Amino acid sequence: MKQKKYILQDSELPRQWYNIQADMPNKPMPILDPKTKKELTKEDLYPLFAKECANQEFDREHAWIDIPEEVMEQYAVYRSTPLVRAYGLEKALDTPAHIYFKNESVSPLGSHKLNSALAQAFYCKKEGVTNVTTETGAGQWGCALSYAANVFGLDAAVYMVKVSYAQKPYRKSIMNVFDGTVTPSPSMSTRAGKNILTVNPNYSGTLGTAISEAIELAMTTPNCKYALGSVMNHVCMHQTIIGLEAEKQLEMAGEYPDIVVACFGGGSNFAGLSFPFIRHKILGKKDTRIIAAEPFACPKLTSGTFEYDFADEAGYTPLLPMYTLGHDFQPQNIHAGGLRYHGAGVIVSQLLKDSYIEATDIKQLDAFKAGVLFARSEGFIPAPESCHAIAATIDEALKCKEAGESKTILFNLSGHGLVDMAAYESYFSGDMVNVQ
Amino acid sequence: MKQKKYILQDSELPRQWYNIQADMPNKPMPILDPKTKKELTKEDLYPLFAKECANQEFDREHAWIDIPEEVMEQYAVYRSTPLVRAYGLEKALDTPAHIYFKNESVSPLGSHKLNSALAQAFYCKKEGVTNVTTETGAGQWGCALSYAANVFGLDAAVYMVKVSYAQKPYRKSIMNVFDGTVTPSPSMSTRAGKNILTVNPNYSGTLGTAISEAIELAMTTPNCKYALGSVMNHVCMHQTIIGLEAEKQLEMAGEYPDIVVACFGGGSNFAGLSFPFIRHKILGKKDTRIIAAEPFACPKLTSGTFEYDFADEAGYTPLLPMYTLGHDFQPQNIHAGGLRYHGAGVIVSQLLKDSYIEATDIKQLDAFKAGVLFARSEGFIPAPESCHAIAATIDEALKCKEAGESKTILFNLSGHGLVDMAAYESYFSGDMVNVQ
Repeated sequence: MKQKKYILQDSELPRQWYNIQADMPNKPMPILDPKTKKELTKEDLYPLFAKECANQEFDREHAWIDIPEEVMEQYAVYRSTPLVRAYGLEKALDTPAHIYFKNESVSPLGSHKLNSALAQAFYCKKEGVTNVTTETGAGQWGCALSYAANVFGLDAAVYMVKVSYAQKPYRKSIMNVFDGTVTPSPSMSTRAGKNILTVNPNYSGTLGTAISEAIELAMTTPNCKYALGSVMNHVCMHQTIIGLEAEKQLEMAGEYPDIVVACFGGGSNFAGLSFPFIRHKILGKKDTRIIAAEPFACPKLTSGTFEYDFADEAGYTPLLPMYTLGHDFQPQNIHAGGLRYHGAGVIVSQLLKDSYIEATDIKQLDAFKAGVLFARSEGFIPAPESCHAIAATIDEALKCKEAGESKTILFNLSGHGLVDMAAYESYFSGDMVNVQ
Repeated sequence: MKQKKYILQDSELPRQWYNIQADMPNKPMPILDPKTKKELTKEDLYPLFAKECANQEFDREHAWIDIPEEVMEQYAVYRSTPLVRAYGLEKALDTPAHIYFKNESVSPLGSHKLNSALAQAFYCKKEGVTNVTTETGAGQWGCALSYAANVFGLDAAVYMVKVSYAQKPYRKSIMNVFDGTVTPSPSMSTRAGKNILTVNPNYSGTLGTAISEAIELAMTTPNCKYALGSVMNHVCMHQTIIGLEAEKQLEMAGEYPDIVVACFGGGSNFAGLSFPFIRHKILGKKDTRIIAAEPFACPKLTSGTFEYDFADEAGYTPLLPMYTLGHDFQPQNIHAGGLRYHGAGVIVSQLLKDSYIEATDIKQLDAFKAGVLFARSEGFIPAPESCHAIAATIDEALKCKEAGESKTILFNLSGHGLVDMAAYESYFSGDMVNVQ
């Protein structure tokens, strides 16, 4: 029997996250106060985030950060996730490529999001915070923060993008199981929400709006901190557990990737898988193509511009130097709610600018076609977001076929689609369309 | 860091199933032709089932059956499943008991059902069959057979109990992803369905009715075989991979269970986890309490009678010697659709008669209360069926607390509840009631 997957025992789990900022030749540009245009420091973020997260956000010194023991104990509930050789997909494509995927879908909530939620909730608890709040698109991050808040005894309040709230009612129930409070966004509970609803009562919401609402709640509630599920440097760093495990597991398989692929919303699963491999690229040891697969409906990396922009729609956040479609960009309602974000994280943006990574955009129908092929050949039904990574992987595997090259391709199955079956239903019924 | 879970590498997976019939001191009583009351042989089942499955059904000679290489390759997609030490639940209960659970929820479809579906579909393919059909309650088995049929290139037709079809629409979509055809049961596509709908057009269906429909389709369609997800001896045997892995994994942890618990519908996950441990009991080597947790709404083990009865509602099947509530018993619409079956498998029934196992019944509200406690302390949201096993486990763990005994309890997390969130919604809303 050929070995199908590679798993680390609890004792073999990586004990540190990788902080790519320490190794980047061109450091990320500063983030700015929107009014004064003055460079912000970690102290400026203390009111909003856990201090330790703010410190990590600005840390350009330490390439390796110890994972707290309490977080390791929680990681061990589901980590390591398996690294799987996609023999079935290779066969279906008749490609000489070696395709591997990191299966983050086996986590309790079916996605990679817990990796950072657990870290952020832990730091909040340690610093005496009692309440956390956040926004969520497809619902994965809101579920993850509710779960993590419950683990560490915090109260969680989640603003969920209204279109996803309607499309994915079960995600709301999942948050309730973990005692999270869920509000569809835009809502009347914040000034930011009210302002939008006054102009457009039927507005279906975006991540940007929901971020505005959560930040407003955090700034106006005592002992409440905000937690972000993507974009930020510290979030990307917590996710590097994915790539660090994958590196060890590929070593068990005697492989090193020629190509690394992940879907791209704000950047968290992409950063998590790819940063450890970009490290070797920066250090000049290995040359790997790193591909971000973004939706055609929200193409900030392939069609956006690199400039200072707000991270949220209402303009509450600092100005970030990033690839963006404009903070008021309103993506169409594709099913991959987690990819409907106007900008890219600061680090990823700098890495794209410096050509360490590349990007490709995937149309919705192509994403689901790839997802169904994957499910039928590998068994796991991918989340709509992950379908984008699969489509890009298939493109590369087919190029290998044409060229007769047996490259090693690694992609991230960031989550399963069992709670997104309405999207598949739409695909099969023929209702689904590509964005024009 | 304490070791949280135990995982076998692909190369360490068990390569044989355990056939408890070979070791049982009192063999199961014969199954009978309902008309002639004559004892049936394996040849009598050849028209309905794959030959190899029929052979296994009657095999009282070989305690160990080799798992075909093609099935092993498919098992390796998700097996071994983790054996997890439930430190969080132990802490929440403040019990000295050591609680372990076998996490079958990490399979691609979120339940244990693939273990037998893959075997049955493989044997069908090997024997030149082109079509398979079955019934499904909560949908887990129908998804599993659709998945397995797709793997081995067969067409699958699934009759899904109507009430579950309505409660769990996403399971239908999952079957579609794997190219399965799904029909709500009772349907007008069979004589069995028509007969029932004529008398009661609003009948919400049961597993028994759906079985009748699938059997009728198999018997009237060329080159089509029927596959059952539970009850039958060969199905129970395929599931023993669960317990055989658990035995190895507990050995890694330096433990042997004092108590083994699984929920009980037709018996497949119960048999799968417990038979390898009953083996040591039969052989006089170990004494372990084996507890089947059935729903209060469908209590065949605790309140049924041991007698010859049909396996289906319409009376198409042979007569089986089993604990039963009567083949026309209509359980109330509890959310644990997979447990709404009137009878128990032949082997399990004999084992209960011979006192190798015991049973307990769990009320619906108690099951969900236990499920929420488990989710909040261990992360994974259990399927409504699995909640019953958790409730029974908690009962035993609390008895350990009272008695100050640190017994080792092993239970089966047979599936996750991410596709059953409507049930949790009903629980949280206060709409859910216990059966009167």
